[in-house]
Amino acid sequence: MSDHIKLFIPGPVEVRREILDAQTQWMIGHRGAAFEALFARVQAKLRRVFFTRSRVFLSTSSGTGLWEAAARNCVSDDPDAGVLATVCGAFSERWADVFERNGKATVRLRVEEGKAIKPERVREALLARAADPNKKPFEAIAIVHNETSCGVMNPLAEIVAVVKTLSPDTLILVDAVSSLGGVKIDFDGLGLDVLLASSQKCFGLPPGLAFAAVSDRALAKAKTIKHRGYYFDFVELEKFLQKNHTPATPAISLMFALDRQLDDMLAEGLENRFARHARLAQLTRAWARARFGLFAEPGYESDTVTCVRNTRGIDVSALNKFLADRGMHISDGYGSLKGKTFRIAHMADATESDMQALFDAIDAFLSV
Amino acid sequence: MSDHIKLFIPGPVEVRREILDAQTQWMIGHRGAAFEALFARVQAKLRRVFFTRSRVFLSTSSGTGLWEAAARNCVSDDPDAGVLATVCGAFSERWADVFERNGKATVRLRVEEGKAIKPERVREALLARAADPNKKPFEAIAIVHNETSCGVMNPLAEIVAVVKTLSPDTLILVDAVSSLGGVKIDFDGLGLDVLLASSQKCFGLPPGLAFAAVSDRALAKAKTIKHRGYYFDFVELEKFLQKNHTPATPAISLMFALDRQLDDMLAEGLENRFARHARLAQLTRAWARARFGLFAEPGYESDTVTCVRNTRGIDVSALNKFLADRGMHISDGYGSLKGKTFRIAHMADATESDMQALFDAIDAFLSV
Repeated sequence: MSDHIKLFIPGPVEVRREILDAQTQWMIGHRGAAFEALFARVQAKLRRVFFTRSRVFLSTSSGTGLWEAAARNCVSDDPDAGVLATVCGAFSERWADVFERNGKATVRLRVEEGKAIKPERVREALLARAADPNKKPFEAIAIVHNETSCGVMNPLAEIVAVVKTLSPDTLILVDAVSSLGGVKIDFDGLGLDVLLASSQKCFGLPPGLAFAAVSDRALAKAKTIKHRGYYFDFVELEKFLQKNHTPATPAISLMFALDRQLDDMLAEGLENRFARHARLAQLTRAWARARFGLFAEPGYESDTVTCVRNTRGIDVSALNKFLADRGMHISDGYGSLKGKTFRIAHMADATESDMQALFDAIDAFLSV
Repeated sequence: MSDHIKLFIPGPVEVRREILDAQTQWMIGHRGAAFEALFARVQAKLRRVFFTRSRVFLSTSSGTGLWEAAARNCVSDDPDAGVLATVCGAFSERWADVFERNGKATVRLRVEEGKAIKPERVREALLARAADPNKKPFEAIAIVHNETSCGVMNPLAEIVAVVKTLSPDTLILVDAVSSLGGVKIDFDGLGLDVLLASSQKCFGLPPGLAFAAVSDRALAKAKTIKHRGYYFDFVELEKFLQKNHTPATPAISLMFALDRQLDDMLAEGLENRFARHARLAQLTRAWARARFGLFAEPGYESDTVTCVRNTRGIDVSALNKFLADRGMHISDGYGSLKGKTFRIAHMADATESDMQALFDAIDAFLSV
């Protein structure tokens, strides 16, 4: 189609024609047998992608909605307890903000944008907390696994190990919005408590759905917390999940697409899918290093989105105009990084030939 | 299509093929010019349907999400102030519950299920409040215009007139989830403060989007309230709406469908659309009265969904099985009304011939 601009932005990502078309099945009621079968199918497949035998809640919202869910369900209003929010870029900063806007005591562990959250820093923060006679242990720690704004992938397993050792009762809340489905995150193996993702990133779906694996102890914690609200209440979601229902009417046409896409993801094989993401990331980094530079701290570059340091000072808008004529679109830098960086997503169903076509087009722009 | 069961349930409703197909446009980014043009088009058309020059927020959620928005933005945590929640059935009861779950002082004005909220009762409640030296005026009143569970349409204009006279500073929050787009509700003319609806009822769209017209004074009130959260924060939604954006990534494929459906609604003509809903309601009531009875209080029957009193004691599941073979589906009674009533929706894009085919099929079932 002539109006088709292939997206290389870190969400919403390019969605394949078959998946777009899967949305068009005739509408069904959300309290009947057809819906219950759909919900059960999707639930079983989501658990495989999240590597959990636990529940995966389905939310009609963006991942941002599940940030609010994590804040309202897993952290009390106790001003002496609260959350340790690790911050390494614009999205982790906003999640910290969401905790505060929900009235939760929030301590930020902030590193320079582009740098990773190191286990040593988390260790220091937890030890400092334990040494403070006026404070209680953190009820939760919030970690953005893959910081979309600057292309940093944090060392999740190492951070989790520190928390499990030093503050074992602290719930571990992980935003994997832009990595889950493209990078392996073993919910049960790591012992996470909340792991959230959204449909329009590595799942290769249109936006509008978000998913959260939730541990038994997170659910138990939620039951102790007042004023969790209703729309994002884990206890309510669990009650309905037991019946293969959702508390409110969900985005059914997006669930049709999800059902189909999960089949395709499992048919590809999750390990193959993760390997493809790693390979595309290597290709993209090699291309970018040879022409520009990388923004992320070496060793912590994301396997789903590459943040390119704009060392040549190219006009990113002009580049995108050039690419649009060739049916492609990339992302400018985020917030204060606009112009100084640009971002290339290599997630969901992108292929080597997709990436090569993009690299060729940008090379053509550079040589104009 | 052989698997096509036409829905006569009060949401999700039947969605026309053209509207389902409109979801399949290629994905676009939510921070670019194409999205901004889409948002602006949709916004202008939504304002016509809501009869307002004010803003109409677009939420990726069900209408339930906007219940939470109304609770968190329009009512403070002051235990001596709070909301007067009118209750006449299961959904208005749940909205009252949502206020409480968000920590808001909630006084219920409850009438028997199937009866309407009368302006006299609201008048009494407001006078009682004014006479209570320990309480402040209600910050808001919550009214479900069309109670989907029992087919009652409340006399909104009369209730609003009482509030405007006796408690003019009380914000007027209206759930028109299952009536807006099928029945005229003049947001500006009535002087409402929040008017919310969702996509899968009279708009004839798949579920996943919800809409709220919000007055300037509701927005001003929101700014005074702590801990509004983020996902449903009116102040945040307004900030982004000014740029034709949404704070979080919205359900873009559903917005494509909305854009198309609003064109069709305006092409039909809103007055024609409302007249069609009134006509289908009359036909349905006449059919139901001749064979069963109506559950709603006379004079307050809904123009979008008819709740039929099951005076013949038919097996509603057996009826639905019979109808399924003929490609149709209706709704059993809700909650405690299951079996005692059943519900027939006549909303969105339903036609007289759709309804006649349904009546004929049910008549065939009755004569079996």
